[in-house]
Amino acid sequence: MSEMRKIAMILAYDGTDYFGFQRQKDLPSIQEKLEEALLKIHGRKVDVVGAGRTDAGVHAAGQVIHFTTPLSIPDERWPYAVNSLLPPDIRILKAYHVDDAFHARYSAIGKRYLYRIDRRPIPDVFTRRFAYHYPYPLDLDLMRTASRQLIGRHDFTSFTASGSSVVNHVRTLYEIEISEEERILSFLFRGDGFLYNMVRIMVGTLLEVGAKKRSAEEIPLLLQAKDRKKAGYTVPAYGLLLQEVLYPKEVFPPIM
Amino acid sequence: MSEMRKIAMILAYDGTDYFGFQRQKDLPSIQEKLEEALLKIHGRKVDVVGAGRTDAGVHAAGQVIHFTTPLSIPDERWPYAVNSLLPPDIRILKAYHVDDAFHARYSAIGKRYLYRIDRRPIPDVFTRRFAYHYPYPLDLDLMRTASRQLIGRHDFTSFTASGSSVVNHVRTLYEIEISEEERILSFLFRGDGFLYNMVRIMVGTLLEVGAKKRSAEEIPLLLQAKDRKKAGYTVPAYGLLLQEVLYPKEVFPPIM
Repeated sequence: MSEMRKIAMILAYDGTDYFGFQRQKDLPSIQEKLEEALLKIHGRKVDVVGAGRTDAGVHAAGQVIHFTTPLSIPDERWPYAVNSLLPPDIRILKAYHVDDAFHARYSAIGKRYLYRIDRRPIPDVFTRRFAYHYPYPLDLDLMRTASRQLIGRHDFTSFTASGSSVVNHVRTLYEIEISEEERILSFLFRGDGFLYNMVRIMVGTLLEVGAKKRSAEEIPLLLQAKDRKKAGYTVPAYGLLLQEVLYPKEVFPPIM
Repeated sequence: MSEMRKIAMILAYDGTDYFGFQRQKDLPSIQEKLEEALLKIHGRKVDVVGAGRTDAGVHAAGQVIHFTTPLSIPDERWPYAVNSLLPPDIRILKAYHVDDAFHARYSAIGKRYLYRIDRRPIPDVFTRRFAYHYPYPLDLDLMRTASRQLIGRHDFTSFTASGSSVVNHVRTLYEIEISEEERILSFLFRGDGFLYNMVRIMVGTLLEVGAKKRSAEEIPLLLQAKDRKKAGYTVPAYGLLLQEVLYPKEVFPPIM
């Protein structure tokens, strides 16, 4: 019997035409397309484990997956082998032969997400699949002040969809950066983990601050309330991009 | 009877899902979508005249159209009125009440086109609809040298699809600018007019120079030959964007 190897891959996808990363019955998913490609290469089912389950319509520039294989394809050939069997809106960027202990999800120590907003009066046809059109006035200084209140270790119950099965809602946010270039406003979030809809509810709440519908000072009270109804609205999925999954250097050296 | 007004509009479109600007039987076109929207507003057919016929899959950031209307909608309201009836991949950006003498096509004195190439080893999923994936080595200096040979007033018969009904193939190219940013190579072309497939054949020829399959010095001979077979290949339509239509200041002041 041939030796089994564990392979990790970094991949990008345009999530527009998928019902999220995770395989679902009768609905197209990223995981399904990856497993179909690996099935063709191996002649049998290969289970793909992803670092995180991006929602329907959410994009990725640096999703991470792992799987085990008896094949001894060189790391630099793996992307070409798999890409030739994938639809053009999913691309493997890198592949690494990793240690058996590596797990795409459990080895991760954080993630970086980007949320983009198109502020032009009339939506840009070329970014319309990747940026949420919001043409109303915004006070970016107020939004930055509010965003600083979210940094740190907090219970983010107010910022997650109610009804989620996750019990522990304490997460640490390391960074929120708000920047604008050519009328595209970008929110960068870096943290040790994100609850269901957490980025999208934080962006909706920050937009309400920027529109002066709520004050920057109420963010600490909002966190204390632990009540989803107190926070802002959930902005649409298509503005969200999983930019990078973070791993400790010793677990996954080539990616870091 | 109400007074007729002539309206000019600047529009952008993602051409991926259309068979070009011009109306065609049983195939979706930009002109068809515009005329459908104007039919709903007017309750009768309104003919739309475009500055140029972009091919199937070609995009526009600044196509120009005109039509006549008895309606007295203010200029700044026209884009919203029409956009609400258009699919999201076509957007009216500006509207102007223009002089009766204005004609989107015959008043134009030039055009600016952009052709984009994705040079990453693995195609970027987010620009794949707008940039031609070409991951091979290129000598940009040789390409710039060759491009300077195309500038000026020439007979461009070698650089147009044979079988075109246009008799006069003399055009003036004012500018070709080749630049690269984040692995996207852009070719900007500005000229008084462009023949069928002319930009795409010039880019294909310049790529062959950059790949050292032909020399920069042979461009003048190529022009003299007046033979399509002597020039390079036609790069795909989806990398091409009509960026701007140029008009004299006195004819169409608001756009300039």
